[in-house]
Amino acid sequence: MTCLLPDPAQAALARLSYRQGQIVPTAGVAPGLTQCNMISLPRDWAWDFLLFAQRNPKPCPVLDVTDPGSFRSTLAPDADLRTDLPLYRIWRDGVLAEETPDASAAWAECPDLVTFLIGCSFTFETSLQQAGIEVRHITQGCNVPMFRTNCACRPAGRLHGEMVVSMRPILAGRVAEAAMISGRTPAVHGAPVHIGDPAALGIHDLARPDFGDAVEVRAGEIPVFWACGVTPQAAVMASKPPFAISHAPGHMFITDIPDTHWQV
Amino acid sequence: MTCLLPDPAQAALARLSYRQGQIVPTAGVAPGLTQCNMISLPRDWAWDFLLFAQRNPKPCPVLDVTDPGSFRSTLAPDADLRTDLPLYRIWRDGVLAEETPDASAAWAECPDLVTFLIGCSFTFETSLQQAGIEVRHITQGCNVPMFRTNCACRPAGRLHGEMVVSMRPILAGRVAEAAMISGRTPAVHGAPVHIGDPAALGIHDLARPDFGDAVEVRAGEIPVFWACGVTPQAAVMASKPPFAISHAPGHMFITDIPDTHWQV
Repeated sequence: MTCLLPDPAQAALARLSYRQGQIVPTAGVAPGLTQCNMISLPRDWAWDFLLFAQRNPKPCPVLDVTDPGSFRSTLAPDADLRTDLPLYRIWRDGVLAEETPDASAAWAECPDLVTFLIGCSFTFETSLQQAGIEVRHITQGCNVPMFRTNCACRPAGRLHGEMVVSMRPILAGRVAEAAMISGRTPAVHGAPVHIGDPAALGIHDLARPDFGDAVEVRAGEIPVFWACGVTPQAAVMASKPPFAISHAPGHMFITDIPDTHWQV
Repeated sequence: MTCLLPDPAQAALARLSYRQGQIVPTAGVAPGLTQCNMISLPRDWAWDFLLFAQRNPKPCPVLDVTDPGSFRSTLAPDADLRTDLPLYRIWRDGVLAEETPDASAAWAECPDLVTFLIGCSFTFETSLQQAGIEVRHITQGCNVPMFRTNCACRPAGRLHGEMVVSMRPILAGRVAEAAMISGRTPAVHGAPVHIGDPAALGIHDLARPDFGDAVEVRAGEIPVFWACGVTPQAAVMASKPPFAISHAPGHMFITDIPDTHWQV
């Protein structure tokens, strides 16, 4: 940690660099400031999605919803949601059609997109680090590993799909503390959904994540799984709305809101 | 407290007595089991309301949403939402048209009602009592006092209005503990929104609540204010949807879900 107080100027600087084309995962960037998952859907799908989020609050804690067609969020009033994330995914009929660092052209295709910004577990990583708990993917300088699971979300209207989780290896003696620290911020996924038994989630090889990068799991470390805001993308794949825009996993929207805002 | 473990049979028994016509405030009933506020709106208003709730999570934490036309909730699968609350309010164009212990006839008027069940602060009162903090309206055997405030909610679509709060007088030396205990359950309003200065909320006479009953505030006690699930009714009054059904303030839906389910 280079600073004890979060610095919104770091968030603005990061967003500017992404707007100018830099493509990097955002874990560890602008420490102490909330990061968000993004999913944009045509207005006709917005009710189904907001209900899906209400019914699945661990993977889908909604932090903001835009007006139809708007690319502005109260979480970072100066940001442009079409350009200020490092990497976007464009979905057509549930199929990943394109990855792009600039979603402006895709956004223009659908004038009534409603955009949902969803809490991200990167947000509590600063608190883990401040407690002396290593966050392996930050240490290794890569993206967090994410896995599809066999846990069905509660469906809503046309939307259904399985929960996606992120994984962090934690020393057995620090797992309880990691659960408690993250549990204080339910708006950014909160406490882990599963600790220590990947097979029970249908995960058979920790070295082959479905999204992001593999990280080393050392002797004495337990794999700890948190609900993940990539879950809406799994729902898009399963439910096939005609059009959607999302962030690319690990390439988040960095907001101006301090992490501590979400602590209960 | 007569039992240490919550007993869903007590919830079922209470719902049965309300179905048979008993009209009483529900504070202190079925201790340890979650109570809910209710607001039912025509499907055309459902998106605006769910967005209003997302934007105002302190007064409007949504615990369940029914399918259009359904009177069943996952929070108490055997319950009938049309009859199992002790008292309902029927709203027409934002005006209170009727109070009734049986909403079946009103429900039949609008075949696509979407019903929102919203966390209620009665849910953390058992925890307060277990900590030895007196809950005055339970001691006095009356309804909790509730007040309209001058705090505007963040609007959503056609819905706007001021926040409503409930008030409990707490000994100055126990206020911090009451804040922490309630803060552990954000899904049932969580920590207080205001402590000790009614005038700052636009409340000028604690002896004249807008809803519920006045309670005694003794020397050495501080008025503590929690966001209240009657807020949707204030939004109905201000925003005038053509039709709505709600619980009567303090006359809640008693569910089968233990209070502890919401602790973070």
